[in-house]
Amino acid sequence: MNYPESIEKLIKAFSQLPSVGPKTAERYVFSLLHSPKEELLSLSENIKNLKDNIKNCSICNTFTEKDPCYICQDKRRDTKQICLVENTQDLWAIEETKQFSGKYFVLGKLIDPISNINPQDLPIKQFLNLIKNENITELIVALNFTIEGEGTTLYLKKYLPENVKVSRLAKGLPLGSDLEYADSLTLKNALKYRQDL
Amino acid sequence: MNYPESIEKLIKAFSQLPSVGPKTAERYVFSLLHSPKEELLSLSENIKNLKDNIKNCSICNTFTEKDPCYICQDKRRDTKQICLVENTQDLWAIEETKQFSGKYFVLGKLIDPISNINPQDLPIKQFLNLIKNENITELIVALNFTIEGEGTTLYLKKYLPENVKVSRLAKGLPLGSDLEYADSLTLKNALKYRQDL
Repeated sequence: MNYPESIEKLIKAFSQLPSVGPKTAERYVFSLLHSPKEELLSLSENIKNLKDNIKNCSICNTFTEKDPCYICQDKRRDTKQICLVENTQDLWAIEETKQFSGKYFVLGKLIDPISNINPQDLPIKQFLNLIKNENITELIVALNFTIEGEGTTLYLKKYLPENVKVSRLAKGLPLGSDLEYADSLTLKNALKYRQDL
Repeated sequence: MNYPESIEKLIKAFSQLPSVGPKTAERYVFSLLHSPKEELLSLSENIKNLKDNIKNCSICNTFTEKDPCYICQDKRRDTKQICLVENTQDLWAIEETKQFSGKYFVLGKLIDPISNINPQDLPIKQFLNLIKNENITELIVALNFTIEGEGTTLYLKKYLPENVKVSRLAKGLPLGSDLEYADSLTLKNALKYRQDL
């Protein structure tokens, strides 16, 4: 026995979203059933149009409505500094710190042989061309400190021109953290990269 | 600074779903951006059509595509027994136990003066008429054991015809539970309503 078909279909569609199981999807559907019709139409419309309006910036590869994206168009930004991130969310996380005024490049994915994502699947050529053509002098690697992030960083290092200054985000303890509860690798890094006071 | 408008709009729309905050909504949107276009269209279509196909059963008030719903139409079910539930999800939870073969009535909401839901906002008249007209002999109250559920149960009790046998779901300890971790009210009820072995 099952819910009516329209409900089952939508439960199945919602279950495709990240970390949404059938129970959560069910809650979403019943919440929509209690919402006004206009809200459903607007949600439906926004989903339908999402991909029509959003494309990848031809320069930095971020998701954008206008190409080039408005960071790439912004003349006030430092054009010699570039920050390499995995995805658009990471780009915006860095933007929110207001600590970086250069340009970005979005890789889109990281090298991950287990999921069969190899170097040739990443826009590495586009990235290296950008560094060369724009005479970039400083690169900040802001990839995740995961196996895939570290692997991609190591792979890229081989291909970077020598005249580019390369740095990466600092490894250390997060603010508000308690030494007692930090994992030993993090603590090891915090010691190794101890900063001048 | 913000994400492109199409992304922001959809984040806002998703944030209306129960227990979805802006961060979760953001993850949904970026996951959709990486999904094939057909998946987006199907999700969008399902949301748009949800309310068109779903109505309330004119007999038992559950969400259904056909009116009356197929439980109300099912001639093999016991028509003298009725189970009162708050919503369609609860109805299906009971259906899944396969322990009940009577009919249902869905209240839709519970009396909750704090949220300004008063007895007259509930389909109580429809429910009492159903009991009278269908010559119901047994009612099982399956409302939540919350303040609102208990309040609604007490309110309804006053209006039920005397010739109807009324029972409710058993209060007690859930299966697999540990006495040590049970809250004292649950334990108190488990003692008070102890069952013959």
